[in-house]
Amino acid sequence: MTLNGVDTHTLFATIDAVKDQPELAKFQFRASNRWIGGTHNRSTINGYYGAGQEFVRASDHRYDADHPPVLTGSDEGPTPVEFLLHALAACLTAGIANVAAARGVNLTSVESTVEGDIDLLGILGLSDDVRNGYQQMRVSFTLRGDDPEKLRAVVEQSRKRSAVFDVLTNGVPVAIAVDAG
Amino acid sequence: MTLNGVDTHTLFATIDAVKDQPELAKFQFRASNRWIGGTHNRSTINGYYGAGQEFVRASDHRYDADHPPVLTGSDEGPTPVEFLLHALAACLTAGIANVAAARGVNLTSVESTVEGDIDLLGILGLSDDVRNGYQQMRVSFTLRGDDPEKLRAVVEQSRKRSAVFDVLTNGVPVAIAVDAG
Repeated sequence: MTLNGVDTHTLFATIDAVKDQPELAKFQFRASNRWIGGTHNRSTINGYYGAGQEFVRASDHRYDADHPPVLTGSDEGPTPVEFLLHALAACLTAGIANVAAARGVNLTSVESTVEGDIDLLGILGLSDDVRNGYQQMRVSFTLRGDDPEKLRAVVEQSRKRSAVFDVLTNGVPVAIAVDAG
Repeated sequence: MTLNGVDTHTLFATIDAVKDQPELAKFQFRASNRWIGGTHNRSTINGYYGAGQEFVRASDHRYDADHPPVLTGSDEGPTPVEFLLHALAACLTAGIANVAAARGVNLTSVESTVEGDIDLLGILGLSDDVRNGYQQMRVSFTLRGDDPEKLRAVVEQSRKRSAVFDVLTNGVPVAIAVDAG
């Protein structure tokens, strides 16, 4: 019942369980972040809510971010925008594995590169006509496994159901609260 | 010339240099990703282009992502959507440090939490009325340092010039190419 490392029995059982109890589908993910100095800061990721309960992982995940020296940072971690590239590749790839398993499509390898073009005239405050964020992102997948047409269809279905692809292409409301007491 | 760990001399010199040569502001960031098994995959982040040249860091950054067991993953890393929370907190916090330094505002601490609400009826294919991605994201900052009004204004200016906030709230075109040869 396992294909591509995905337990398809559990996958279909999960979908059936959520079909019966749609409130199980409500999740909340969380991160906390602490400024270290300059543009260097660190996020901690652990607990989340979902399937009607709180989950705590065995250990925290910690990720540093910084700006590069050419932008007066100290390169203690990737830039924040590079983590968007990772999130996109990871979400599409996980979806490819799940969709392929659900369809009985065998994968032998999935590799991708993601690029994001950004013009810093925006964030540096030097142009009001240039946006702050990426102007364009590109993902290139190289897949091997069953027949190419099936693999292409799997990628397309993963895109159609990708949480990160949706957020990055359609945007999301973000509320910011400040305690400066 | 250093405030909040930000070298303000270099910061202003960088802005002046880009003002004279706007093409220095064109950057491209990149990540590559490899499927490991199931929903587990790993991204590598290193080289980028900017300020008219290629940069390679001394070592690669590698980040795993996975789905949690409740979603038939094996929890080998955070979920892809959790990296969006990290990217958002990191970008706003780096901006806060830079803007504060540029304005001569002293910071003693900057902490934040980020939450994202998602209803998995979308990605599980159980509802066409529920989006795939986050429905709402919330960031809560706690800042200490100079007077609260100045700190609030710094957060607001960071939001106005944040690359990740722009991408997440306004969206970006994402092109996907597939080699399934």
